[in-house]
Amino acid sequence: MERYVDPKASLGQGTTVGYFSVIGPDVRVGRDCTIGNNVVIHKGTVIGDRVRIDDGSVVGKLPMKAATSATTDGKAVPAAQIADDCLIGACVVVYAGCRLGHHVLVADLASVREDVAIGDYTIVGRGVTVENRCTIGRYCKLESECYITAYSTLEDRVFVAPGVVTSNDNFVGRTAERFKHFKGVTVRRGGRVGAGSVLLPGVVVGEDALVAAGSVVTRDVPARTVVMGRPAKPWRDVPVEQLLENQGWTDA
Amino acid sequence: MERYVDPKASLGQGTTVGYFSVIGPDVRVGRDCTIGNNVVIHKGTVIGDRVRIDDGSVVGKLPMKAATSATTDGKAVPAAQIADDCLIGACVVVYAGCRLGHHVLVADLASVREDVAIGDYTIVGRGVTVENRCTIGRYCKLESECYITAYSTLEDRVFVAPGVVTSNDNFVGRTAERFKHFKGVTVRRGGRVGAGSVLLPGVVVGEDALVAAGSVVTRDVPARTVVMGRPAKPWRDVPVEQLLENQGWTDA
Amino acid sequence: MERYVDPKASLGQGTTVGYFSVIGPDVRVGRDCTIGNNVVIHKGTVIGDRVRIDDGSVVGKLPMKAATSATTDGKAVPAAQIADDCLIGACVVVYAGCRLGHHVLVADLASVREDVAIGDYTIVGRGVTVENRCTIGRYCKLESECYITAYSTLEDRVFVAPGVVTSNDNFVGRTAERFKHFKGVTVRRGGRVGAGSVLLPGVVVGEDALVAAGSVVTRDVPARTVVMGRPAKPWRDVPVEQLLENQGWTDA
Repeated sequence: MERYVDPKASLGQGTTVGYFSVIGPDVRVGRDCTIGNNVVIHKGTVIGDRVRIDDGSVVGKLPMKAATSATTDGKAVPAAQIADDCLIGACVVVYAGCRLGHHVLVADLASVREDVAIGDYTIVGRGVTVENRCTIGRYCKLESECYITAYSTLEDRVFVAPGVVTSNDNFVGRTAERFKHFKGVTVRRGGRVGAGSVLLPGVVVGEDALVAAGSVVTRDVPARTVVMGRPAKPWRDVPVEQLLENQGWTDA
Repeated sequence: MERYVDPKASLGQGTTVGYFSVIGPDVRVGRDCTIGNNVVIHKGTVIGDRVRIDDGSVVGKLPMKAATSATTDGKAVPAAQIADDCLIGACVVVYAGCRLGHHVLVADLASVREDVAIGDYTIVGRGVTVENRCTIGRYCKLESECYITAYSTLEDRVFVAPGVVTSNDNFVGRTAERFKHFKGVTVRRGGRVGAGSVLLPGVVVGEDALVAAGSVVTRDVPARTVVMGRPAKPWRDVPVEQLLENQGWTDA
Repeated sequence: MERYVDPKASLGQGTTVGYFSVIGPDVRVGRDCTIGNNVVIHKGTVIGDRVRIDDGSVVGKLPMKAATSATTDGKAVPAAQIADDCLIGACVVVYAGCRLGHHVLVADLASVREDVAIGDYTIVGRGVTVENRCTIGRYCKLESECYITAYSTLEDRVFVAPGVVTSNDNFVGRTAERFKHFKGVTVRRGGRVGAGSVLLPGVVVGEDALVAAGSVVTRDVPARTVVMGRPAKPWRDVPVEQLLENQGWTDA
């Protein structure tokens, strides 16, 4: 058998499926899509038109719940939804319960978990993790190997540089109390976080603010302000020419 | 061919194997396991009951030895052993010579190398690397994207936050002398390491101690003490309500 | 079907291909190679003799270009070239437009992008990313989970420790001006970068210099000097016994 396409799956005109791929029941794939080799698309996933999914990727994976998990509750999740013109790299894992807007790129070896929505034109870089229960805006760039913890919100036009780490538990895995306080990070519209920075639980990076590379952010960052250091402190205003309003970008 | 199950492999009652998976010779899989699609299980691997292995994972991989490797010796390793009720995510790589206790979860895109033992109920998070020659206790949480260097020991109930980096070579790849001194990190029972911290070769994090997020740990951390900074220095005692003995946890 | 080998592909004597692997048109594989299961080798890729490629890897992937990408231009790239005696791990992604010298090891879950050349005997560790337009020398060690940004140059005998992050855009994704200034990092012959360090755009680590673990490097590092801190400052000379010239290494 060259590939398995469930009798209850539907593939649009012009769509191709590589060798040894598996298309599960009730999957709907639009027109002119290119599905690679060894790809698995799980039950019920809905994929738009002109989507590319590269070799070895898994779309619509059902969550696993560890006996001792703190943030995964094992409830049922809806099927994954991938809108038109998305690009999904190789060896990517996209969960059921995830919705990707149109023109989203998810690069190789990245994963996006359940209860996540990602806005149009956003790039999820190579090896990035977006944990469960996150909301990611439009036109964001999550650069290679950054880590977005559960319960985080990134608004539109957010830039997260390579190797950024975020966290959501000030109690570091202890006390029953902590379950009430899990809090991811929030980055407001146009906020930017520099390479290798660490954001502590619950911090808010203000609108169009910038965290310099290598910082540890322990408290909220004021809008349009550059912070740096460990702990990060305000250093200066974001240069005018770098402000979002001066980029000439229109949101298509 | 829908899947390859070697004639010398055995699968227990109620166990299912997805499409395009490969079960090698002398593999023994227990009852009621769910093996996904495009999974490879190498020769001789022993898997317990009720184990789930998701799409694209590789179990029992034989080590590769680079011409110039410093810590991989190319000796023969025994087959991988996966105990009952383990959950293995998608695109995971588990080596021959690895033993997982029962109820271990290894999340997507993680890898666990040879000469490693992982205790019951431990979670190995998304993208985590456990290098060769490590011992990991029971009920540990190795959060997403943390890196456990070769020759490390983590005792029971250890918590390693996202993006933590550990190292084992104070000579940074130089001198013949260094081969005598490779030394991973040790984290004693209940020790916790905060997000994005870096642990230098040979450091010992004491029992129930806590390394604050974003620290660089250059020397041993006293028991029940919070350290922070670069280099990390003692800051205060671990809050009483966060001590292991006050969690009401019984080791099942 | 057990595997797909395109009629226009050629496999040398003694070469084996695992189950459910795909060998595309015009691929040439040398003698005595071991290709695992679920491996995909794309059109035109040239592979030498005695190469091992483990399960689930993808070689010769064509780049994807996001609508909003800053550093990927969508131009055609030549086929991937893998020289004799390379070892490629599991779930690795190697792009078209990449050239690996002989005896290169690319460990599990690593990826190497287009317009990259990697010199003989270099190790690309587990989970490492080498972005596009990089040149990597011979006998380098890029340890697990380090990140090499686009437009970087690493000369021979460079050592990059686990979790190192590099960056190439001082404008952090803003201004049209930035396109003229993208600049990766340069590490001169024998330079070493310690665990968890962050290198800012354009920095040059001098010949046989050493960046201590956990540093943030904001300016060039003088040859044979140890720097440390945030920002990193000169601390002392590299110990004589650690200098490259005193290792007794001959470049085979």
